[in-house]
Amino acid sequence: MLRLIIALLLFAGAPAFARPEAWVEANKASILDEYLALLAIPNVASDLPNIRRNADHIRKMMEARGLSPRLLESEDGKAPPLIYGEWPVPGAKRTLILYAHYDGQPVTSAQWKVTPPFKPVLLSNRHDQGGAPVSAPASGREIGSDFRVYARSASDDKAGVMAILAAVDALKAEKRRPGFNLKIVFEGEEEAGSPNLQALLRRHKAVLASDGWLIIDGPAHQTGPQQLVLGVRGDVNAEVTVYGPVRPLHSGHYGNWAPNPGMMLSELLASMKDETGRVTIAGFYDDVVPLSDAERAAIAAIPAPDEALKRELGLGWVEGGGASLTEAIQLPSLNINGIRSADVGENSRNVVPTTATAALDLRLVLGNRPDRQVEKVRQHIRAQGYEVLDREPTMEERLRFPKIAKFTSEPGYPAERTRLEHPLVRDLSEVLRRNGKLVVQPSLGGSLPLYLIREELGAPTIVLGLWNHDNNQHGEDENIRLQSLWDGIDSIAAVLAMP
Amino acid sequence: MLRLIIALLLFAGAPAFARPEAWVEANKASILDEYLALLAIPNVASDLPNIRRNADHIRKMMEARGLSPRLLESEDGKAPPLIYGEWPVPGAKRTLILYAHYDGQPVTSAQWKVTPPFKPVLLSNRHDQGGAPVSAPASGREIGSDFRVYARSASDDKAGVMAILAAVDALKAEKRRPGFNLKIVFEGEEEAGSPNLQALLRRHKAVLASDGWLIIDGPAHQTGPQQLVLGVRGDVNAEVTVYGPVRPLHSGHYGNWAPNPGMMLSELLASMKDETGRVTIAGFYDDVVPLSDAERAAIAAIPAPDEALKRELGLGWVEGGGASLTEAIQLPSLNINGIRSADVGENSRNVVPTTATAALDLRLVLGNRPDRQVEKVRQHIRAQGYEVLDREPTMEERLRFPKIAKFTSEPGYPAERTRLEHPLVRDLSEVLRRNGKLVVQPSLGGSLPLYLIREELGAPTIVLGLWNHDNNQHGEDENIRLQSLWDGIDSIAAVLAMP
Repeated sequence: MLRLIIALLLFAGAPAFARPEAWVEANKASILDEYLALLAIPNVASDLPNIRRNADHIRKMMEARGLSPRLLESEDGKAPPLIYGEWPVPGAKRTLILYAHYDGQPVTSAQWKVTPPFKPVLLSNRHDQGGAPVSAPASGREIGSDFRVYARSASDDKAGVMAILAAVDALKAEKRRPGFNLKIVFEGEEEAGSPNLQALLRRHKAVLASDGWLIIDGPAHQTGPQQLVLGVRGDVNAEVTVYGPVRPLHSGHYGNWAPNPGMMLSELLASMKDETGRVTIAGFYDDVVPLSDAERAAIAAIPAPDEALKRELGLGWVEGGGASLTEAIQLPSLNINGIRSADVGENSRNVVPTTATAALDLRLVLGNRPDRQVEKVRQHIRAQGYEVLDREPTMEERLRFPKIAKFTSEPGYPAERTRLEHPLVRDLSEVLRRNGKLVVQPSLGGSLPLYLIREELGAPTIVLGLWNHDNNQHGEDENIRLQSLWDGIDSIAAVLAMP
Repeated sequence: MLRLIIALLLFAGAPAFARPEAWVEANKASILDEYLALLAIPNVASDLPNIRRNADHIRKMMEARGLSPRLLESEDGKAPPLIYGEWPVPGAKRTLILYAHYDGQPVTSAQWKVTPPFKPVLLSNRHDQGGAPVSAPASGREIGSDFRVYARSASDDKAGVMAILAAVDALKAEKRRPGFNLKIVFEGEEEAGSPNLQALLRRHKAVLASDGWLIIDGPAHQTGPQQLVLGVRGDVNAEVTVYGPVRPLHSGHYGNWAPNPGMMLSELLASMKDETGRVTIAGFYDDVVPLSDAERAAIAAIPAPDEALKRELGLGWVEGGGASLTEAIQLPSLNINGIRSADVGENSRNVVPTTATAALDLRLVLGNRPDRQVEKVRQHIRAQGYEVLDREPTMEERLRFPKIAKFTSEPGYPAERTRLEHPLVRDLSEVLRRNGKLVVQPSLGGSLPLYLIREELGAPTIVLGLWNHDNNQHGEDENIRLQSLWDGIDSIAAVLAMP
């Protein structure tokens, strides 16, 4: 309540939006009812009939709010549509798009312990912390702050859909308009990698014109506060295979003589990093756009989760030569996703294997390009004495070159980052800070194809992470802590009212 | 024929055995008949009823030859028995045991293209070189030198059983006695790793007293000649696992910060060898008993298969810094049998894996002990900064030690080598060289538990490899080129006549 009073005082000069918290408090039970109905519709992106059911259901939710919804279809009409709605504000100085996605990660129902993924249930707490099923409450007073809803997409990302629409309700209840032209976009295949997003943006470019996108997706900071994330790393995958003999050899008769691909690969991989985990590939960090002083200051202000995470993850040391996690993820990375050469354990045999393969994941930051980053790795492999091919070697090549590596990569995509100095960042930070504690991250470690929005529409993107971080997003028993939903609606309402 | 005449002349002073070749030539058809019947009895060591059928059948074959056979049983009578026979020679200066094994490798019948494994067939040549089925010939004249018999154990090692018994026939046909007290031992679970051999040797120590064992098992040299192998490497397996986070982490959110066990393992393995493949673990070669000048000379005299093997195996370089294959296998080895960390290819995900594991195979030479060799590797891992455990680390240990490795090993066994200067080696080399070209190998690269025979019975062992090296031993479509069977009988008969 103190927070609310302070907010009221601070907003004195602006067209203040008085009581989002009070409205949320009064409407929890009906928001929950509407949300449980939405979660009951299966929403795996590849399940097109159910994706259509979701789209129709959400369109009706938007119609009821007067948001003039329509489905933005792909050219063949077969892809999950973007659901579009708008609340025009004549004379507003800017247009913003609020984004969420209505599809969810694929499910393996057998792994769900609390409830089947599309039978949402309400628990009094986390299921492994004494939570017990609760029947739908008649009023918000009966909803404890630890209550959670369990279902696929409870956090990721139907919570985004629900919170945006509830925030609209909150404004309407006070007969307010947004402080900007509001457009809403709900995507239907984000968890499938957004294969049609670029074409959809291009096809519906005019209607999607804006001054910026606010992406309502992802968790709050591990330490609790909501977080404004200004960027994501880019990503590109590669795979390297090195070769031993054409058939597995008896390790007794040929061991010490026939080259062992497992050892060759180990030497190759070991040559890529120093003992602190810094990548030693030539030029690996050269094209990185340095952080600004403001970004560096923002990072320094983020509560460090490092020690708690190390305890949780059982880590006695970390890479980065003393850098914090937040600092570390501002750099491009080289990660070994997996290694495979013959077998270990019970299936191991005494052989010199024929091949050894490593799957690599390269994360990119501003300034990196996927093709350039992959090329640096290729040149490094070459510099270790390898003939680098993009296919299996022929017998003739095997005999000609002492060492051969097959090196392939996927297309990947670049990083995206909105500078901390952008007016939208400044305004969002201000309004969200008035509403509670806020972490501002220049960039996440993870990746999203946000570059598409800049490339296709010229708009900057900012991500707002709202949900409890222990939400099992992507896994079984996905859930949302309802307090994070109420706080999220509250924050989005405050953003909507932002001048 | 010239070879035979020379042999006769050289043997002038000894109680010469005149015509083994001629006897074999005259009896090929009946040997083949007897051999096909023996091969038709399934002989996988774990198939005890059929192993008994083999033992009874072979006992009868020995009875027919007056070899006073009996079955040497395990204490519980359940293990495949040793089949023992003897031909005492009063006044002989020494006693020798000729050994073969009557069990064969397990079979996957579906993979056999030529014939089911226990339906032996005769082909006119190798099946993939135009060989066609031939009905059992009435006389040896009809048997071409390229003819092959296809069946499990056709080479490995019922050929040893058949050749020893046929050589006995050859002597008897000339009313000759062996030049030594002859004992014969046929083992019934060699391909299962001889789990009861030590106990059987101990239990039947008195009857198995001898001055040496001649093991009739394994192929001739890759370049053609029969080979006398004086030793084998020992063997011990180990496995090392290193640890990252307790659960797989998102490679974007945590890559660059959470230690990657695949990279740690790569660095650890790479630290174990230099670029020529020489093991850099402290003391790794220290306890090796050096080769004698004579052994070195014997190795230098072996025709080098290296270039042909490199072409066949597609190898553009080999380890050993210029050493030949034969030289290389005189040293202890460290081989990576396999590596595994998370997944590659289609199953790869963008994660920091939790563990990485390498299966290691250490081959040992004279002077090495399995426990000492394993300890050198353990100390090396420790010297790379690892806390070395023999089990999974606890959470408390994970937090206390920056790097943890689980390192486990199996018992293993030492190498065995009979010195080139041993009188038995000298005598066998002489008689076999008179009979044809011979390769004398101080040691095979592979391993057999021959140390048991020295440890339990105090007897040296020598292996005589006789069969075509392209015999698919252990695989599908195992076969024997009949000419190598005839030559083998010829050589064993010459050995039997050896004074």
